[in-house]
Amino acid sequence: MAKHDPALSILFHTLSDPTRRAILSRLAEGPATVTDLAGPTGLRLPTVMRHLSLMEEAGLIATSKDGRVRTCSIVPEALDPVRRWIDEQRAIWDARLDRLDAFVMSMMKERDK
Amino acid sequence: MAKHDPALSILFHTLSDPTRRAILSRLAEGPATVTDLAGPTGLRLPTVMRHLSLMEEAGLIATSKDGRVRTCSIVPEALDPVRRWIDEQRAIWDARLDRLDAFVMSMMKERDK
Repeated sequence: MAKHDPALSILFHTLSDPTRRAILSRLAEGPATVTDLAGPTGLRLPTVMRHLSLMEEAGLIATSKDGRVRTCSIVPEALDPVRRWIDEQRAIWDARLDRLDAFVMSMMKERDK
Repeated sequence: MAKHDPALSILFHTLSDPTRRAILSRLAEGPATVTDLAGPTGLRLPTVMRHLSLMEEAGLIATSKDGRVRTCSIVPEALDPVRRWIDEQRAIWDARLDRLDAFVMSMMKERDK
């Protein structure tokens, strides 16, 4: 079995919530304040702040505070481990198909001898 | 906010568990029985079967039964929505960088007038 990767588990868990994914897509367009982000969700501010806190812990966003205003921005490379994992699965799958191809070819050669 | 995509939420939730990710990587190499899959996890069979059931519901794997033996195989295209979502985030981010580039260029042209 592949070794446990807690960061990847946290990333997938963070992305499993539609509100958090929507916030991430919004932040990909540019930084926004907590109030700006809360608006379209229809959720209460404390709920949105809990989502943002989870996203910051997962490394998906960064926040900074200026007086009473907290601004959030995306950490674009944060999704790289997810992309890498998906690519790895594809690579394992492709390698398997290559082995199957090679096997079928060798069977056909054997038959045509 | 982007529309809610329950299938995507379920996929991300299913992938948030390291045992389920390990099972998926194993199945990318080829079909396996439930007993084969359980071995390396060190988990009890009912626990592994619960994981497999969740993965089947999420559309990540397919299972078939021959007598008392249940065989699992991967559904390779099942990860496509996750890959697509990741690509979409990258596209939003790239579009933002293009707009920033265009803005800086127009500022420089303005300055050099």
